[in-house]
Amino acid sequence: MFIAMNRFKVIPRLQGDFERVWTTRDTHLREVPGFIEFHLLRGPEQEDHVLYSSHTIWRSRADFESWTRSEAFRQAHRDAGQNRPLYLGHPEFEGFEVLQTVAAGEQ
Amino acid sequence: MFIAMNRFKVIPRLQGDFERVWTTRDTHLREVPGFIEFHLLRGPEQEDHVLYSSHTIWRSRADFESWTRSEAFRQAHRDAGQNRPLYLGHPEFEGFEVLQTVAAGEQ
Repeated sequence: MFIAMNRFKVIPRLQGDFERVWTTRDTHLREVPGFIEFHLLRGPEQEDHVLYSSHTIWRSRADFESWTRSEAFRQAHRDAGQNRPLYLGHPEFEGFEVLQTVAAGEQ
Repeated sequence: MFIAMNRFKVIPRLQGDFERVWTTRDTHLREVPGFIEFHLLRGPEQEDHVLYSSHTIWRSRADFESWTRSEAFRQAHRDAGQNRPLYLGHPEFEGFEVLQTVAAGEQ
């Protein structure tokens, strides 16, 4: 399993706009091979920004990488440049391999 | 839903030790109210460290905070100081509220 996260330092007074862009978008992820689940996360507040993260769980890193080379990815990111003023700098990508899982209810 | 992450900058030659400490530990999380799932994650490599993250999903921030005040938490972190030389500096905590979820197979 692989988790792809993109960290955004959102300008505090523009949080509502940032959340609206994400929660009202038309997503095609459900149809992408290897896609498991997406979450939009709101993290800690700092003096000049609030940390947000897009958090996508994939079956494998290879599935994620295939998606980044697809037409669906290009379409999804076509308008991303237009939202630049909502956050400081560039989003920071971090990909994580899942090494261990402990779930409630297991023994 | 709430995701609690702790980021560790692990010294590259000590990755095996760090992973062993986590994957062989005796965890009591399964019995904690509101606990959903734990993952140990390995992230990007930098010049002087490899980013790891403990990633725990809770029903709510309140459940997570109750756990941090519990005897189970105190027991789980009793020996944490002994592992300090495996990573640079202190672990960096970040808590995230889940604002939106998109799952595979939903319409």
